Amino acid sequence: MLHISKRAQEMPASAIRKLVPLSDAAEASGVTVYHLNVGAPDIASPACALEAVKSRAEELHHVSYTNSAGLIELRRGMVEKYYKPLGLDITTAQLLLTVGGSEAFATAMQAAAGPGEEIIVVEPFYTNYQTYAFLNGITLKAVHSDIREGFRVPDISAFEALLTPATRAVLLSNPCNPSGKLFTREEMLKIGDFCRRQDLFLICDEVYREFCYTDEPYFSALCIPGCEQNVIIVDSVSKRYNLCGSRVGCIVSRNEEVMACALKYAQARLCPPLLGQYAALGALDTPASYFKEVRDEYIRRRDCALEALNAMPGVYAPMPYGAFYTVAELPVADAGDFAKWLLTDFRDGNETLMVTPAASFYKTPGAGDSQVRIAYVLELPRLRRAMELLQKALTEYGKCQKR
Amino acid sequence: MLHISKRAQEMPASAIRKLVPLSDAAEASGVTVYHLNVGAPDIASPACALEAVKSRAEELHHVSYTNSAGLIELRRGMVEKYYKPLGLDITTAQLLLTVGGSEAFATAMQAAAGPGEEIIVVEPFYTNYQTYAFLNGITLKAVHSDIREGFRVPDISAFEALLTPATRAVLLSNPCNPSGKLFTREEMLKIGDFCRRQDLFLICDEVYREFCYTDEPYFSALCIPGCEQNVIIVDSVSKRYNLCGSRVGCIVSRNEEVMACALKYAQARLCPPLLGQYAALGALDTPASYFKEVRDEYIRRRDCALEALNAMPGVYAPMPYGAFYTVAELPVADAGDFAKWLLTDFRDGNETLMVTPAASFYKTPGAGDSQVRIAYVLELPRLRRAMELLQKALTEYGKCQKR
Repeated sequence: MLHISKRAQEMPASAIRKLVPLSDAAEASGVTVYHLNVGAPDIASPACALEAVKSRAEELHHVSYTNSAGLIELRRGMVEKYYKPLGLDITTAQLLLTVGGSEAFATAMQAAAGPGEEIIVVEPFYTNYQTYAFLNGITLKAVHSDIREGFRVPDISAFEALLTPATRAVLLSNPCNPSGKLFTREEMLKIGDFCRRQDLFLICDEVYREFCYTDEPYFSALCIPGCEQNVIIVDSVSKRYNLCGSRVGCIVSRNEEVMACALKYAQARLCPPLLGQYAALGALDTPASYFKEVRDEYIRRRDCALEALNAMPGVYAPMPYGAFYTVAELPVADAGDFAKWLLTDFRDGNETLMVTPAASFYKTPGAGDSQVRIAYVLELPRLRRAMELLQKALTEYGKCQKR
Repeated sequence: MLHISKRAQEMPASAIRKLVPLSDAAEASGVTVYHLNVGAPDIASPACALEAVKSRAEELHHVSYTNSAGLIELRRGMVEKYYKPLGLDITTAQLLLTVGGSEAFATAMQAAAGPGEEIIVVEPFYTNYQTYAFLNGITLKAVHSDIREGFRVPDISAFEALLTPATRAVLLSNPCNPSGKLFTREEMLKIGDFCRRQDLFLICDEVYREFCYTDEPYFSALCIPGCEQNVIIVDSVSKRYNLCGSRVGCIVSRNEEVMACALKYAQARLCPPLLGQYAALGALDTPASYFKEVRDEYIRRRDCALEALNAMPGVYAPMPYGAFYTVAELPVADAGDFAKWLLTDFRDGNETLMVTPAASFYKTPGAGDSQVRIAYVLELPRLRRAMELLQKALTEYGKCQKR
């Protein structure tokens, strides 16, 4: 009998996207679904980004391949606009353009580890790390950070306890998707010191770097002294400029071996998308006022969502200081079942909402079973309505469960 | 000591792109390089494709993610324009959009085989198949087709001889990159029959389908009777519409397991590029006259290149009937060294050319050592000049070798 490969059968489906067929079905039947499930903001891309696409398309003879590492002018621009402001003298040779942040972390993981090797992650973590680990035969080992402690990073002893001869890297996102946790300078220095002492790569996914809600300056892993050879950065234009669909990201490292490896991977897939690179090029001219407005808007949304969540009986969500997500503990035993039920059964005024069950953001069995990730990416009136729907749904679901 | 993973170290560099730093250096020093090394045509994209990008960018609020499977209107359009004309009733559920043809064949290979398993390829084959096989721990076993026999497909006994319990698929490109070989209906039926009998997937890379230079109608693997569950098609808008940089391709199969697997892979990388999908959507309106003109142009280029090549002493290249490549045997012992020398040493009027050494298109040791792949993707005057350069280079290289 003809079957797909064992590995393909065993590959986990995206926890974030696997409910999509159910929401498609709800929407097809006329139901309005409030999408709090994906980090797909509804904020306008900078006008200069779209303008650049238009004017380049106007002049274009044909949509050609670019260099596998991406357009040199865009690499230069990102060095200038992304890394100079952090006080960093990154060169274009240390920055390679990827097909979104997804390819950047896939590449970073492949550079750091191979089949049978291990990467330490801080849980909860972005679920696609698990997918790419699986595809490459890499095992993720998780240091647990707890929702009830505001996802504080545990002592280094927790990292040390996971060390084996096969450990190759530590991987984290800062600000963190899904928790919204912003790592402190001290936490980063501690982790950096651990990586340096143990000869591990430190893969730091910084795609939400523009979304920090404290007055502290952002502390990039690239700024950890003595960790120059260890650090691999994952970055993207997606969130920064609301250009998610452009599929342009980058991998940054001062480690020459890593960059040579990244180029080999890049050559296999030929090049990043040209038109998305044009959008990113245009976006480099985005005025500071754009970022301020976006940041202010997210602070309003965050405050709205967090206040509403923590006012719901039995719900707890710690204040996120970065990104546009929060993890919330709900008064349900199985948040996966609840999320499904929202799409298949719950309706209020022919409306419902979609959230992401958090279990797949954890390696520790049971750790996230009652939790969901909420992306506060809707404008305020819609976000308020979504929160109202969630409250009603929890009440109704509670009644159903008791029956 | 900190080092990249063993697998990353061992990963082969792209044979097609690894000479790029040398050509960059030559160009930086003011030398004109005629690029016969990549299948990057210089033909204009259809006006309707660029127009669509412009008008969509005009109206766009933000560049958002799309469904992981791609825009449904584009999937419908491709079903209609790509597969209906072949007499096929493919559904949108049987077609998933990918990040270029590269992702489509990576996905197809992953669906068919896993670590420790094997795929039979017909050599010479597109070198990136080897890269993705390596990354997935898959072994390629090669059936040899010979340049001196016009790359005729050997008897099925040659395929049978490679069968092991780990064999999962046959993989080929038709028309073939790099040889320009167009598989006959009979050859496809024979291979299809073999796959059906042995329960193997038949992965057929048909990205050059629009570039056939015979009067026979193209025979897609999807048309092989009884092979409905076995066939996985790799397709792309890149070559068809001169939209290489748009990074939009697709994977097509009637096998539900394969498509469910393709969706899991697709969800991990979120979505294909939106702006490229807009270009592809616009391209669906490309008039038939465009394809006729492009085809006529490639026939002229092919004839020009092949006549020139076969007139050079010691050079042999069989007539290609599809795609825009030919493999040529040169009077050199090491075509890799020759290709490098072209970029580093050879100059004629401060010009040189770039070709791809063919060794990496073969698994059989030594099989392609004297051969290069030539992409006849330049307009006629430049192609003629490139051929003149090649002839002069061969003469000069011959003299250098004798010294």
